[in-house]
Amino acid sequence: MSRFLDGRFSHLEAYAPGEQPRDKKYVKLNTNESPYPPSPKVIAAINSAEVADLRLYPDPTAVSLRTAIAGRYGLTPEQVSVGSGSDDLLNFCFMAFCGSGTGAAFPDISYGFYKVYGELYGLDCREIPLREDFTVAPEDCYGLGRTIFIANPNAPTGLALTREQLRGVIEHNRGSVVVVDEAYVDFGAESCAPLVDEYDNLIVTQTFSKSRSLAGARVGFALGSKELIADLELMKFSTNPYSVNRLSLLAGEAAMRDGGYFEKCRAAVIAERERTRSELLARGFEVLPSSANFVFARRDGTPGRELFLALRERGVLVRRWDSPRIADWLRITIGSPEDMDALIAALDDILKGA
Amino acid sequence: MSRFLDGRFSHLEAYAPGEQPRDKKYVKLNTNESPYPPSPKVIAAINSAEVADLRLYPDPTAVSLRTAIAGRYGLTPEQVSVGSGSDDLLNFCFMAFCGSGTGAAFPDISYGFYKVYGELYGLDCREIPLREDFTVAPEDCYGLGRTIFIANPNAPTGLALTREQLRGVIEHNRGSVVVVDEAYVDFGAESCAPLVDEYDNLIVTQTFSKSRSLAGARVGFALGSKELIADLELMKFSTNPYSVNRLSLLAGEAAMRDGGYFEKCRAAVIAERERTRSELLARGFEVLPSSANFVFARRDGTPGRELFLALRERGVLVRRWDSPRIADWLRITIGSPEDMDALIAALDDILKGA
Repeated sequence: MSRFLDGRFSHLEAYAPGEQPRDKKYVKLNTNESPYPPSPKVIAAINSAEVADLRLYPDPTAVSLRTAIAGRYGLTPEQVSVGSGSDDLLNFCFMAFCGSGTGAAFPDISYGFYKVYGELYGLDCREIPLREDFTVAPEDCYGLGRTIFIANPNAPTGLALTREQLRGVIEHNRGSVVVVDEAYVDFGAESCAPLVDEYDNLIVTQTFSKSRSLAGARVGFALGSKELIADLELMKFSTNPYSVNRLSLLAGEAAMRDGGYFEKCRAAVIAERERTRSELLARGFEVLPSSANFVFARRDGTPGRELFLALRERGVLVRRWDSPRIADWLRITIGSPEDMDALIAALDDILKGA
Repeated sequence: MSRFLDGRFSHLEAYAPGEQPRDKKYVKLNTNESPYPPSPKVIAAINSAEVADLRLYPDPTAVSLRTAIAGRYGLTPEQVSVGSGSDDLLNFCFMAFCGSGTGAAFPDISYGFYKVYGELYGLDCREIPLREDFTVAPEDCYGLGRTIFIANPNAPTGLALTREQLRGVIEHNRGSVVVVDEAYVDFGAESCAPLVDEYDNLIVTQTFSKSRSLAGARVGFALGSKELIADLELMKFSTNPYSVNRLSLLAGEAAMRDGGYFEKCRAAVIAERERTRSELLARGFEVLPSSANFVFARRDGTPGRELFLALRERGVLVRRWDSPRIADWLRITIGSPEDMDALIAALDDILKGA
């Protein structure tokens, strides 16, 4: 910290991304990446002529990509904003809709970045405690008088609310914006995208990082009324109008237009998730029913930290947190069948010694 | 605007990027892009294996790219922060160093984004009037007690201060951060990078968008003491840790390591700038001496707006602003020799009719 940093930030704790170790090759099940490459159409789209055109700025209005996204969700391009990952759009939601005393609310166990944004902007944040079974109770989110952020499916639990449950939350907060963060929705939850035309207080965010195998390209989007989207675009054009680079605009569009490949990949991840869940259950794990591309699991009598380190030692990286309620749980990304075999083999090796 | 937008932003005017028309092909001299493609090493670096790896997140610490940049400027990677264009880093400077009553100062005619950041964050901003000849007088920047932003060379004038003049500004503001925005420095001005080790109140920002032909990749960087850089990284990791995508990290590194190609391109742009300047002078234009990849010019008796539109009609796009002091001036990017021939031909055609 320099002597010049605004005092407001002296205790700010930044987001800690999952580790990206460079010391050796791991079976990397810690950052919810896809085990499959992007669509062949993405690979074809990024050719050397396009790379040569990097001398030119991207289209800051991202019309082609927004049109492709709008087409898929039955919306107009004016109802879509794109950014450098959905983090970008979540950041803008915190900037645009939570200040001047409005405040924010989100589940106490959820995507860790919500709390960081709250601290960054000095917002009054209210945490909604998950129930004993780790579910978000919709009625706990009614009439909060704050901008509400709900990850659906939630991370790191993988548990999802139904669209009708979320409709209830939106209905009971007509005076506030409800942001439904659907980073993982394609792996089995119901999207709220069909509600965008009905509610002027709903924003849905999604990402190309998981179900479209483009974590490295940094593309995310928000859906909402054209007024809410105009607000997000105002934030974008007041911070970094060219936030999505040329090649990522192309990659996003090609990925969005290749519905067949998308379906194939997500079906493979879902099938592998269910197999992994069975294997874990068979080994005495408790595993929450997941609608995401990860499972959240623990084993009675085996401390989470110990298990985490033993897996790491065996070359398998998963993710865990120190916070008390979930300290014994591991979030395990669903990789390829070979990745998950490696996980299971490592667990067998660990449990054999236990 | 939605009914939910924070009232602080109801009058916020976003940055207006140079137009990117899609109606027809223009000789595009309005956004200071390079006429040359990126280094062949960039084109080689972005191969299909790397595109397939887009399924993986980028390295959020950007170690390889920061090391390449540090190497060029004789600094350590801890003295370098990278972002999605230098806008990203300027945004962080406004966030980190201008709030809680510190405020900002910048020349009244300069990069238009400074004012936008000031409004976005509700900062107390002081504009430093350019002198009659459009120069920034260093002594006007002494002891301001605010975070100071100086584009050097300045935009849209192209005029530069010497490193010793800027040293004076830094020396006379030891209690404040001085940000020297060197987006155009490679075209003929002296960089303040060599002063980074000497002053703990200096940040230098640069971009890959101009002299390294990577406007479409969105890569910029900041140089400073490791404490100041840690502050910028704190802002990055509290907003969007993966702001630079995988392919742009590769492109930036390849471009930074290809010093030969860089030298060739900037020499070509400088030579073409001087030729363009002579041609404009010969046609009765006043042209400020430029250290950038554009010239700032006007012609007595020909209103700027008229000239702008007449050029546009002839397929040549340049940039102008409505603000009173510079309403008659055009900012003309230096393109290829053919581009500049087209500009001159269009001007001859316009002036023939005048």
